[in-house]
Amino acid sequence: MKKFLSGLAFVFLLTFITSGSGYTNTPGRGYELSDFDVFFDKLIALDQAESILSWEMETGGAPPGAMEARAKVISVLEAERFAMITSDEMRAFFKAVEDAQERGDADEISLAIYRVTKREYDKFMAVPADEYQAFSELTAFAFITWAEARETDNYSLFAPTLQEIIDYQRKIVEYRRQAGMVYANPYDAMLDDYESGMTVAILDEFFDDLRSNIVPLLNSITASGKTIRSDFLEREIPISIQRNVSQLLMHTVGYDLNRGLLKESAHPFTLGIGQSDVRITTRYEDRLFPSFYSVMHESGHAIYEQNVAKRLEGTILDTGTSMGIHESQSRFLENQIGRSFDFWQGIENSFRSTTGTHFNDVTLQQLYEAVNIVTPSLIRIEADELTYSLHIMVRYEIEKEIFNNPAITANDLPALWNQKMQEYLGLTPQTYAEGILQDIHWSYGEFGYFPTYALGNAYAAQILDAMKKDLDVSTAVKALDLSPINGWLAEKIHSHGSLLSPEQILAQFTDEGFSSRYYIDYLKDKYTALYEKQ
Amino acid sequence: MKKFLSGLAFVFLLTFITSGSGYTNTPGRGYELSDFDVFFDKLIALDQAESILSWEMETGGAPPGAMEARAKVISVLEAERFAMITSDEMRAFFKAVEDAQERGDADEISLAIYRVTKREYDKFMAVPADEYQAFSELTAFAFITWAEARETDNYSLFAPTLQEIIDYQRKIVEYRRQAGMVYANPYDAMLDDYESGMTVAILDEFFDDLRSNIVPLLNSITASGKTIRSDFLEREIPISIQRNVSQLLMHTVGYDLNRGLLKESAHPFTLGIGQSDVRITTRYEDRLFPSFYSVMHESGHAIYEQNVAKRLEGTILDTGTSMGIHESQSRFLENQIGRSFDFWQGIENSFRSTTGTHFNDVTLQQLYEAVNIVTPSLIRIEADELTYSLHIMVRYEIEKEIFNNPAITANDLPALWNQKMQEYLGLTPQTYAEGILQDIHWSYGEFGYFPTYALGNAYAAQILDAMKKDLDVSTAVKALDLSPINGWLAEKIHSHGSLLSPEQILAQFTDEGFSSRYYIDYLKDKYTALYEKQ
Repeated sequence: MKKFLSGLAFVFLLTFITSGSGYTNTPGRGYELSDFDVFFDKLIALDQAESILSWEMETGGAPPGAMEARAKVISVLEAERFAMITSDEMRAFFKAVEDAQERGDADEISLAIYRVTKREYDKFMAVPADEYQAFSELTAFAFITWAEARETDNYSLFAPTLQEIIDYQRKIVEYRRQAGMVYANPYDAMLDDYESGMTVAILDEFFDDLRSNIVPLLNSITASGKTIRSDFLEREIPISIQRNVSQLLMHTVGYDLNRGLLKESAHPFTLGIGQSDVRITTRYEDRLFPSFYSVMHESGHAIYEQNVAKRLEGTILDTGTSMGIHESQSRFLENQIGRSFDFWQGIENSFRSTTGTHFNDVTLQQLYEAVNIVTPSLIRIEADELTYSLHIMVRYEIEKEIFNNPAITANDLPALWNQKMQEYLGLTPQTYAEGILQDIHWSYGEFGYFPTYALGNAYAAQILDAMKKDLDVSTAVKALDLSPINGWLAEKIHSHGSLLSPEQILAQFTDEGFSSRYYIDYLKDKYTALYEKQ
Repeated sequence: MKKFLSGLAFVFLLTFITSGSGYTNTPGRGYELSDFDVFFDKLIALDQAESILSWEMETGGAPPGAMEARAKVISVLEAERFAMITSDEMRAFFKAVEDAQERGDADEISLAIYRVTKREYDKFMAVPADEYQAFSELTAFAFITWAEARETDNYSLFAPTLQEIIDYQRKIVEYRRQAGMVYANPYDAMLDDYESGMTVAILDEFFDDLRSNIVPLLNSITASGKTIRSDFLEREIPISIQRNVSQLLMHTVGYDLNRGLLKESAHPFTLGIGQSDVRITTRYEDRLFPSFYSVMHESGHAIYEQNVAKRLEGTILDTGTSMGIHESQSRFLENQIGRSFDFWQGIENSFRSTTGTHFNDVTLQQLYEAVNIVTPSLIRIEADELTYSLHIMVRYEIEKEIFNNPAITANDLPALWNQKMQEYLGLTPQTYAEGILQDIHWSYGEFGYFPTYALGNAYAAQILDAMKKDLDVSTAVKALDLSPINGWLAEKIHSHGSLLSPEQILAQFTDEGFSSRYYIDYLKDKYTALYEKQ
């Protein structure tokens, strides 16, 4: 048995004991923003502790029997964090920033912390506590019903729960409006939860563009008759080789493994616990390419988190600014870089030496084509680069309908789903499981989340266009030297963490704001070339 | 990117939000003990979070670059825990238990929590805050100086720091006395930190017994001329085989891997995070037997933690009662069981099938003898079962001298050390590194800790004697069915967790209290037989 608490931890401890709870006001003077350092340190410590406790369970680092006890511990920490977010100290912080802003001496970090926390606080406070609790309780368990419904392909099992969730979501929009929040479209209230400032007005234009450009492109590809060789995608590759490929990729793309690591979990994800500790997971199947591209994808998320400016370390701004911008970084590395011919040209030799004889009969061109093959499918998470955003469009339109048409009920959704899948992807699900029941998100009450996936794709193309004006991207990728690319991303995006809003991040590399044009052009150029070539 | 917080955690969260801070008093009524449940839940949550964050770093589960940031987070959690322990709520709890005791309706769990926390609280409060801070700061860094001194074999580098630590330790004893704590011997104040109720009076008698019995026994063994074959102990065994041996042992001894797991770390240790999550580590060398017996040892600690009664789960009593009793459980499994002929007889076949051909030329008798070979050495952690407690005796006598002879200084200690090593083990260190600088404990300010190792050995022998009155231990061990043994230990020791004090635990299986007789007899019987046999 041993006691923990390293020397270093002890020293910090002393600092905290000495400084006490920093937000205690000295009589006779106003709060200073630095008075809240200890408050935010505690908030961050609770958050990081919860993350690590959960990470352990998700990645097999804790004994299976510990689940229940650990869930309780996490909830105790979360309750504490929750109490802090709604505390008098939090309100005192808001007041202090507002005062400083009035005096004209608020620093940019405090202002950004204010922006991020006040937004959450106001949204939370807009909803009566008992409604919030009831909604939380409902969504805490709904995924069980959803899983059972998917398992048994029985939508009617999930429909009543989904209806309840929808009712709550609609009420939340109302409460926010009553609290003075203004939304041009009720669905905007949900979109803003995952991408601040995102609206139906912007997304309608975006998806209209997609619909009128990508659907015809897909149709012409399907009609082209070109066959891409893809048999080798299905080959069974030993996990030990797949692990070596993961290492090769992480090193190649510049994911710093001194401040990161890779583990395995049921679904790949990235966990940022401050810039010095950014972890990713993958899942190894028999086939190589699912883990290949999940490692690329998660490394994109991870590099974003790792390259936040040092001066933001230890603040709540030490993380990406939004879901959409985050997804742009993972997609950029996965697709714009990782599915480019330049990249395959650059990595070919290392790839071959790492995978032994498994792909000896496959040419570089065949590898490139196969990882870009277009195959309309029913399942979003298995979708190729071209059709991915069409899956999101289906979900976006359904969610928009839910918030704009009070008459629509959960029972109407499967028909709506199937009709849109047929229209955009030319496929009709034969089961609920491969249709409306495939995603867990709605059971968590996460409406407004899906569009960030498509936004990420579109941002990524817009980023590539801007980057090419400053850098010879092609030469860097061919040489597998991603440092100028990561440097550019760090300067324009990563280093700002959450200091800047998504809109402000866009302004770092474009004057025209968000535009779908680059994404459409990128897809058209790439897939027209790919499917014309004989 | 994803958000954590499982459904289960959410439900507990709701409970906490609903119940609020449970120790808020309803006007017009006194506190009830259940009012403090939420307070203690939070204390435990902080403690468990700190443990897991540290565990991750020690077992390679966190990126190396995360060290500093993580140390800060741990310190924030520790500061919070510290604030709780010295809070008004803590004092309100003490008052509530005292009131309940007066009314005659205090439950045994609350009384035990009171016993454990009040003891720590009083000791802490006895020392002025600035002195405590200065001491903490000193010992937070002293291990660095110690490590450098050991590395360069330069005692004079560490001596001034050690002197400072000794000065503080002596002052702490004084402060405690001023606060009304009564010690027959000043060193008792330190001993009590690691084994409540332990005193110089008890230990003097114990070590006198050891000195007059074990030293002559060792001398006669050294003089016996019997040679035990031990060449095969040094054989290089592949780590994969060593891992399989670890699995074999953990399964054999009844360590529940649904609520536990094994990882690797620089020094083996056990971490109990409540009975549903008890982890151990080992370290694999080229040789097999260091990891073999470290797994046995740590499994002994782990089984103790796992077998605490279910009703104590989620309380601070859900852990072993003292360092000495804990060490008795690890030593019992390692030595009384794991180094017995019965055990080797029982495990021989599985051992041979797990280790392939590596020990084909070694007989059962030779295996048994080799793992019990007596070789006086300079290094405590490499000591055999017979000489181990002699190493502790050297440290005990020096620590006792420090607290009873104000004239003694850090500069006097190496000579004292070497003289005692020569007297008890017949060896004189040629360097400080293999002498007085070998252990880290004093640099942490941990005086009074070493004796618990020897106490553990002695308790283990006393336990074996008591157990044999109730059980046919030999038959169970030969059959490798440890369930009756674990059942007995659970009933008498494990299930009580920290509900009972070390003295009360002893009373569960003996009427005579602690006695060194069983340990002396055990060693005499075992080693006389071993070294007489030809």
